[in-house]
Amino acid sequence: MKQLEIFDTTLRDGAQASGISFSVSDKHKLISLIDCFGIDCIEAGNPAYNPKDGELFELLRNEKRKSRLCAFVSTCKVGEAAEQDEGLRKTAECGADCVSVVGKASYTHIKKILKTGRRENLRIITESVRYFTARNIPVIFYAEHFFDGCKEMPQTAFDVVGAAFEAGADSVVLCDTNGGSLPAEVGGITRDTLSRFPGKKFGIHCHNDSGLAVACTLSAVEAGATQIHGTFLGLGERCGNASLSTLIPILTLKMGYSLVCSENLPRLTSLSRDIADLANTSFDERQPFVGSLAFSHKAGMHIDAVKKLPGSFEHIDPATVGNERKNVIGEFSGKSAIFEKMHSLEPTLEKNSPVVSNFLKDIKAHEKEGYFYENADASLKLEILRSLGKRRSFFRLLTFKLVLGEPNITNAEAAKASALIKIEVNGTEEITAAEGNGPVNAMDNALRKALKRFYPAIENIKLVDYKVRVLDSAGATGAKVRVLIETSDGRTSWHTVGVSTDIMEASWKALIDSVEYFLTEKV
Amino acid sequence: MKQLEIFDTTLRDGAQASGISFSVSDKHKLISLIDCFGIDCIEAGNPAYNPKDGELFELLRNEKRKSRLCAFVSTCKVGEAAEQDEGLRKTAECGADCVSVVGKASYTHIKKILKTGRRENLRIITESVRYFTARNIPVIFYAEHFFDGCKEMPQTAFDVVGAAFEAGADSVVLCDTNGGSLPAEVGGITRDTLSRFPGKKFGIHCHNDSGLAVACTLSAVEAGATQIHGTFLGLGERCGNASLSTLIPILTLKMGYSLVCSENLPRLTSLSRDIADLANTSFDERQPFVGSLAFSHKAGMHIDAVKKLPGSFEHIDPATVGNERKNVIGEFSGKSAIFEKMHSLEPTLEKNSPVVSNFLKDIKAHEKEGYFYENADASLKLEILRSLGKRRSFFRLLTFKLVLGEPNITNAEAAKASALIKIEVNGTEEITAAEGNGPVNAMDNALRKALKRFYPAIENIKLVDYKVRVLDSAGATGAKVRVLIETSDGRTSWHTVGVSTDIMEASWKALIDSVEYFLTEKV
Repeated sequence: MKQLEIFDTTLRDGAQASGISFSVSDKHKLISLIDCFGIDCIEAGNPAYNPKDGELFELLRNEKRKSRLCAFVSTCKVGEAAEQDEGLRKTAECGADCVSVVGKASYTHIKKILKTGRRENLRIITESVRYFTARNIPVIFYAEHFFDGCKEMPQTAFDVVGAAFEAGADSVVLCDTNGGSLPAEVGGITRDTLSRFPGKKFGIHCHNDSGLAVACTLSAVEAGATQIHGTFLGLGERCGNASLSTLIPILTLKMGYSLVCSENLPRLTSLSRDIADLANTSFDERQPFVGSLAFSHKAGMHIDAVKKLPGSFEHIDPATVGNERKNVIGEFSGKSAIFEKMHSLEPTLEKNSPVVSNFLKDIKAHEKEGYFYENADASLKLEILRSLGKRRSFFRLLTFKLVLGEPNITNAEAAKASALIKIEVNGTEEITAAEGNGPVNAMDNALRKALKRFYPAIENIKLVDYKVRVLDSAGATGAKVRVLIETSDGRTSWHTVGVSTDIMEASWKALIDSVEYFLTEKV
Repeated sequence: MKQLEIFDTTLRDGAQASGISFSVSDKHKLISLIDCFGIDCIEAGNPAYNPKDGELFELLRNEKRKSRLCAFVSTCKVGEAAEQDEGLRKTAECGADCVSVVGKASYTHIKKILKTGRRENLRIITESVRYFTARNIPVIFYAEHFFDGCKEMPQTAFDVVGAAFEAGADSVVLCDTNGGSLPAEVGGITRDTLSRFPGKKFGIHCHNDSGLAVACTLSAVEAGATQIHGTFLGLGERCGNASLSTLIPILTLKMGYSLVCSENLPRLTSLSRDIADLANTSFDERQPFVGSLAFSHKAGMHIDAVKKLPGSFEHIDPATVGNERKNVIGEFSGKSAIFEKMHSLEPTLEKNSPVVSNFLKDIKAHEKEGYFYENADASLKLEILRSLGKRRSFFRLLTFKLVLGEPNITNAEAAKASALIKIEVNGTEEITAAEGNGPVNAMDNALRKALKRFYPAIENIKLVDYKVRVLDSAGATGAKVRVLIETSDGRTSWHTVGVSTDIMEASWKALIDSVEYFLTEKV
């Protein structure tokens, strides 16, 4: 079977995504994650022109890894000699295992952007590629705007490919730089191009401006391209690049290719989440394969069908990519999904018990208020326990006062918030106070401080995420808000929800649930 | 040229999306938006089985529209007669222009889910379709799991298609129900199927579980399918349905089809945003064609290239879909993008002026703090004005006190927050106070109340959105937060940003910018 090579550009092209700003240490961690997953080649940045990337390559110089490390650079400039180019020199010396060189493959771009002719374009490509091959550094050549170039003036594009191979490039990457090509075009042009360069290695690099980056990549693979470029989560400028989080499982599970990383497929979901965390970007839960909604079922009918026949609404077994099935409790959930959750907590419960139908009514009423249990399993569990008469009470709130400083734009210290709390546990009262960076933090600190005396285990849990969603934007600052809190004890984490027009109250509700869930489960 | 028909199922299949819960009035508004845009057929729901949809169809009964209105229903049950089926009767009487009937086209599903044989499956399909065609109601037949069925036992799938057409169905929709098929498979199977039913109308209905719903739909179109099913924004269960927001511009601009809605393409972006608002779902800004990032350019080099040659990093003119180019000011922005923004405010400014490089330094320092101007144009403009020595001051804050009630989960009234403010404008002092649903709302109300005396125009602006993003989730409630506020004067809207570890302070900063921007621009 033909082998495919996965070329990751999350750190280079992916870093162009709006909202992404990798530090050197982020990139360093990312490389280690991607390397462990078994990606063939990692393009880590542009060490000659980006000082952060220069630092990164220094850090990487003597490290061992399985993935090949690639440094990105442009050809030398029009009218200048490659041998005199500082960028090429720095790139050659950065310690990368290979180098990716980008050059233009479209006549319009040669004329309008480089403002030169085709012959000079071929010269700078040839000399720049040779600069590295002469030093025994393998070259991956990016034929920028290749598909647009081919549609416009094919011979110019083919000449560029030929020049790169002649100068010793290991592979030539056909780029749909502006993401405007359709899969049929990419397939046709790739097939035509490959037939002109028999035995040569071709890569494919697609952007998602038409929502077709994955499909175009697959078309090129069918046409014979063997080096697959992409980024995890599809990170990238504009609409992103071809997503490796989607391509890797399709190539492995649906097209039968054996990739170096195929054996690690069950780690794909957690790897994708780790990358989103490092990128500090929100994770698209609707993402194919790795999103938490990818195998979620909301309609009662679908939940039933999946139980009888997983393939009915699941195209693959979620476990193969490290994901899992999720039955979402929401408007479309029938009694059967709700009952299943209740039954797991109270095995003697019968499906036609009034407890079940009453709870269904309660949940629907809460949802009308703005509650959403889809992302708040722990709050849902507490509600079920309450309906079963099994929710335990851990403390009684006697007093709670928040005192805010002045929101003063010149002096953040003066804005310190503080909270005073008095609770009662089994007849014993505790009054204490705490400060915080803002009122929610003060509230959180004070509650834990008061509870610690009675439940020392509370010291082991930590709020790891705090999200606010305005439910009715039209109401702006007076609108209802939903607060979602994620709490962790280091091994597992749980999600709770609170809704109110007052962000403090919504936070308080979610906070109480987060603590009570922990005490219910662990104490 | 072959005509295509667009079939919208945002209100039916789209409503299955996690997090979506359309009210009757939401659906009513959606229908009017989608109708105005020029969609051929709108599937509005399941009036027989969903009481909300029953209400909706009553409301729609005597309304005029250009789009055809479709009601969805399943075939009658195994072992029962269609003429006795309550669901079919209610659907026939709901007043829709046509009906979509769903039946099974895969042998495994017939056996495992329906627990019956192929003959009985054909009977319930035939009778159910005839139920409507005998009453002169046109039928669109959904062949559920058609592609999986075809891969497994083609004749069974073809027999289902044949039965539906024989019973008088207007069109048969080939469904990739679990979203697992690849474009090449969909193209091949569609071509094969169409060749067996010459002259018949076929639809295509794809799900996005492999990130390929749009590509599979295009493959089916190339193979001859003419009724395109999808949802705006790609809303739908799991990873969503084929996105009409992507398909419509591709079919019109790249494949040359003339759709009824093609002339309204410049309204596509605003329609997509309106639908997201009604669905109360977050808008994916990376979406092809309609997302605000779809034509955004961050790298300095790309910004320069797009200026010289728009096609370099833009596959279409953003205006054709009602979107616009956006030069994002961020880490990768060169001096040239920053200068362009500054120059538009101070035409005498020279590119090499120290004012420009100092501002670049300031912005980078702010970004390090957590500021992000990509979505906060108004704050950026104020910062530029400040650097040019042109930012006007409208008031001086003398005192600001927030007093919070108790976050009390049983009594929301007691949690009322209040704010006291004292400001000075041109030597005149004003002290006032206001209450709010929570502290941010109280802050907002008090500030406007104090300013109103000096700037009565302030009454015309309204906060329309308020968003909070936790920047460093690991810090949880003690982490830095970024508040984004959108303000509108009814005609235009502007975005401002504030960053702090205290959510109150971050809100205050964004609020001040929102008001000062308005006063700068309009007063």
